Amino acid sequence: MALTNHKFLLAARPVGMPKPSDWTYAEEPVAEPKESELLVQLLYISLDPAMRGWINDVRSYVPPVGIGELMRALGLGIVTASRNPHFAVGDHVSGVFGVQEYALTDGKGVRKVDPRIAPLPKHLSVLGMTGMTAYFGLLDTGQPKPGETVVVSAAAGAVGAIVGQIAKIKNCRAVGIAGGPDKCRYIVDELGFDAAIDYKSENVRQALRDHSPKGIDVYFDNVGGTILEAALANLARGARVVICGAISQYCSTGPTAGPSNYMSLLTNRAMMKGMLVMDYFDRYPQAGAEMAAWMAAGKLKSREDIVEGLATFPETLLKLFKGENFGKLMLKVG
Amino acid sequence: MALTNHKFLLAARPVGMPKPSDWTYAEEPVAEPKESELLVQLLYISLDPAMRGWINDVRSYVPPVGIGELMRALGLGIVTASRNPHFAVGDHVSGVFGVQEYALTDGKGVRKVDPRIAPLPKHLSVLGMTGMTAYFGLLDTGQPKPGETVVVSAAAGAVGAIVGQIAKIKNCRAVGIAGGPDKCRYIVDELGFDAAIDYKSENVRQALRDHSPKGIDVYFDNVGGTILEAALANLARGARVVICGAISQYCSTGPTAGPSNYMSLLTNRAMMKGMLVMDYFDRYPQAGAEMAAWMAAGKLKSREDIVEGLATFPETLLKLFKGENFGKLMLKVG
Repeated sequence: MALTNHKFLLAARPVGMPKPSDWTYAEEPVAEPKESELLVQLLYISLDPAMRGWINDVRSYVPPVGIGELMRALGLGIVTASRNPHFAVGDHVSGVFGVQEYALTDGKGVRKVDPRIAPLPKHLSVLGMTGMTAYFGLLDTGQPKPGETVVVSAAAGAVGAIVGQIAKIKNCRAVGIAGGPDKCRYIVDELGFDAAIDYKSENVRQALRDHSPKGIDVYFDNVGGTILEAALANLARGARVVICGAISQYCSTGPTAGPSNYMSLLTNRAMMKGMLVMDYFDRYPQAGAEMAAWMAAGKLKSREDIVEGLATFPETLLKLFKGENFGKLMLKVG
Repeated sequence: MALTNHKFLLAARPVGMPKPSDWTYAEEPVAEPKESELLVQLLYISLDPAMRGWINDVRSYVPPVGIGELMRALGLGIVTASRNPHFAVGDHVSGVFGVQEYALTDGKGVRKVDPRIAPLPKHLSVLGMTGMTAYFGLLDTGQPKPGETVVVSAAAGAVGAIVGQIAKIKNCRAVGIAGGPDKCRYIVDELGFDAAIDYKSENVRQALRDHSPKGIDVYFDNVGGTILEAALANLARGARVVICGAISQYCSTGPTAGPSNYMSLLTNRAMMKGMLVMDYFDRYPQAGAEMAAWMAAGKLKSREDIVEGLATFPETLLKLFKGENFGKLMLKVG
């Protein structure tokens, strides 16, 4: 039985928002696994802000996706053929499988996931890279102490929502910045944040002052731009600013806006530190177990924004940069 | 004998470079010390970039100098009268005495200095707040390890020159950024830096790449602006950026330029941290002893740029912001 794979290749380097013509939709026959390889049929493909960075032609923490190459993406699927002793047909696995229906892999960086612990999409959100980013970014880089105020931007987004809930689990005060009344209601009413700031209708700088009168102890930044500046303007002494992303800037066609008030780091003896979740790969199992326990105890919730169909990729990806997704964005395929 | 004090008061909040009309030169009779007070005759007044910040009407780590108030400054003088049991006539002391000839103080924050250890001006430079800033900023915030590359801006300035020399003492590679061939020659030939970059004639970003091919491990920033960006563009993984000052921005009349490539902190898992020397007050004696030993061993040199006359203050201060001082700038008074 000859299977056919469909996939998205990078056709051109986008300027600003990726256009449909920046992608090539291609098809090819699916090859058989060679010795030590396995074949994965994708079920869900994770759409993440970092993907915008991967298609810029700049030196970064991973090489850029080349023109004509398969678009890089995390995904979750089922093993349909295996010549690798560590994986069996029927195993559910996650890894960097690309934007396609079938992935051949040698198994490096591939992790088995247990669908009995949680529904499959959760393994790409709260129990996947997204949740790990929140967990290690907040706890390892942010180092929140009980009673401190933790502020997170893109708070209804996949990472932000987890950050705020872990802050609450750690007995901090959690303040989220999100766009629109629905997202703001969600993080307070559903997720238990102490307060929400709607950046679309409020003066964020003033609202942060109101909601963190003693200053922000940990600011977890997913957005950059003027919201980062508003947070820097309200730091407490000794604050930690976790740089996780800058989604407001990823599709900018001009230079990235740097925080003009970064000298707040000096007056407040504060630090700003970048983190990349891949550095914590060895600690994922321990963190995943802790997160799963919090989920089982009802302390940690996640929401997934699942869009059907691989072919929708070029359009669905843009939801991230327009702030239109509500929860962890992913494609359902197969 | 009625003594007369001359002093500079802040007359108006400067916009950009302070103008002569932003100051009032005043005179008054010198009062006698009251119970527990001492009278200090100033000998040297330290001129520091931070002074520009102290006259802005913004919330910072110290309250701004008010209009009509004595201009704040560090200084060094001799006790000429004392009703404080901790200080005797003839003691040499340093403290925040202001831009004036005589200071009455209750002794809080006043430290005795020993002129036998080093000539008096050294106690305001390498053995004073300036040296302490370099010492704690580099060692405590920067955490350099042997073999690492340390880059410092304003490297021929009072703080920068010490930073580079301590980096060498700690077996690091020291690269300095300075303005003009004289300063560049000085830091390499006299102070033992491994390399100098002349920001006035070189492309700093490219030169940093050439001089730190494995990336910058510690960047000690005194200047901000495009030089900070050039350093961020060349960080090594896990780099530490010490935010000590931003002299290129202090007299800017527009908003401070934030580093547009701050996301380099993320791709390099780097941190940027502000430091204020006053936080280390309790550790000055230990650091001072270590610095004095390095001086005695010929490993640590300093240069002072001493200008005569209190009355020159408005004009002399500007040397800092024009990059015209060469070494620690101070006024000789009395």
